[in-house]
Amino acid sequence: MKTQTAQPSIVLVAPQMGENIGSAARAMLNFGLDRMRIVNPRDGWPNPRAVAMASSAGRVLDGAGVFSTTNAAVADCTYVFATTARHRDLTKPVMTPEHAMGLAHRKIAEGQKIAVLFGPERSGLCNADIAIADAIISVPVSSVYGSLNLGQCALLIGYEWFRQIDDTPAETAGFAKTETASKLEIDKLADHFESQMEDAGFFFPETKAEGMKLNLRNLWSRLPLTRADVQIFHGMLRQMVRWKDRAE
Amino acid sequence: MKTQTAQPSIVLVAPQMGENIGSAARAMLNFGLDRMRIVNPRDGWPNPRAVAMASSAGRVLDGAGVFSTTNAAVADCTYVFATTARHRDLTKPVMTPEHAMGLAHRKIAEGQKIAVLFGPERSGLCNADIAIADAIISVPVSSVYGSLNLGQCALLIGYEWFRQIDDTPAETAGFAKTETASKLEIDKLADHFESQMEDAGFFFPETKAEGMKLNLRNLWSRLPLTRADVQIFHGMLRQMVRWKDRAE
Repeated sequence: MKTQTAQPSIVLVAPQMGENIGSAARAMLNFGLDRMRIVNPRDGWPNPRAVAMASSAGRVLDGAGVFSTTNAAVADCTYVFATTARHRDLTKPVMTPEHAMGLAHRKIAEGQKIAVLFGPERSGLCNADIAIADAIISVPVSSVYGSLNLGQCALLIGYEWFRQIDDTPAETAGFAKTETASKLEIDKLADHFESQMEDAGFFFPETKAEGMKLNLRNLWSRLPLTRADVQIFHGMLRQMVRWKDRAE
Repeated sequence: MKTQTAQPSIVLVAPQMGENIGSAARAMLNFGLDRMRIVNPRDGWPNPRAVAMASSAGRVLDGAGVFSTTNAAVADCTYVFATTARHRDLTKPVMTPEHAMGLAHRKIAEGQKIAVLFGPERSGLCNADIAIADAIISVPVSSVYGSLNLGQCALLIGYEWFRQIDDTPAETAGFAKTETASKLEIDKLADHFESQMEDAGFFFPETKAEGMKLNLRNLWSRLPLTRADVQIFHGMLRQMVRWKDRAE
């Protein structure tokens, strides 16, 4: 992972339940975000329920700044996103989380200070807070049912932030390239099975034998076998032969 | 949004807390997923705490199938993903949520039946359940702190599933194209300000006037103004002139 110390501040505006503040802290820290700002928390600050829910992500709460207005919370920022489910009448760009976090990375690279606003659980951000923002982030959800809470929304924004610095490959084989069986090893395994199955009378009737052998060769090449897998197949076949020999 | 009725089944293996089952149901339904299967829920089934937490997503629980083994829960499936935080020793492809859900879409389009396994909260999926799966999904998280719960993990998988059928544009301007001010309207606004500011003695000293006018023209073209914004600026300027005239 590339390191990037600069990061967006997550601003919770008038959060109601301490549990949700704690849950947002955990969501953030999973994705390397640890700068929380809180505006007018309903139940005061510090909040023991937030601490209990944050659990091992408590250091996000310890470092959180508390402000009495949204304007004060973003006073030092140069670009502000507002998260909202409903599109308001305000003339303002509306972005997906992915696009918005891409923009956040680019602006931070230019030296800008970014904040992302999250509204209170019941009502969401008020229009006056949205008017402060440069752009709206709206998470696309099903048209039939859309109900993301504060912690879920913070999780998705954090996920998209992190996805753009994370360099995890889309897919890894689960084993090293050197462990993949070579074509020669596959060929020897196919030979081993073909010769023993020949002895066992598997390729019957004679007229179909060539086709059956071809199918079997094709099957072996199609399987994503490691060198260890190949040894297991050799071992099972040898054991079957021993078993047969004991029976004679 | 394109409609796609076929979808992956979400399989919760030995879930412990009803709240987490309910939370997974809500996470799923936000992203159009409503097929839940439950293996051996610790507190039996139905679970009133799951119903309370699911709230308006309760229909996901009503339709959930309950099974006594993971094998039975995925018996009709042809491709199974296992979600796990820790990479196990099992030889198996490991994928990001985005890559895995892209694969799920392609396999479903081919007529395959897909399941995604989620393990119990405390321990995650056991190795025997992971051995059933074709591939592992692992959510990339910070190397410093990684602690995603069942509901969060289900949310991220659902999000990635939905992102690939959703056609929300990455960014919308927040207003119709026809509302953007034309270059002629911007030009007239610039003329209006330039001429009134000229009268007001704003372009001083004379030697800098040309440069100041150029900067002002550049400023107006740089602002993303709608036709309504242009009218507001014209109106404010006219009002300033009237105010000045009254003072004389």
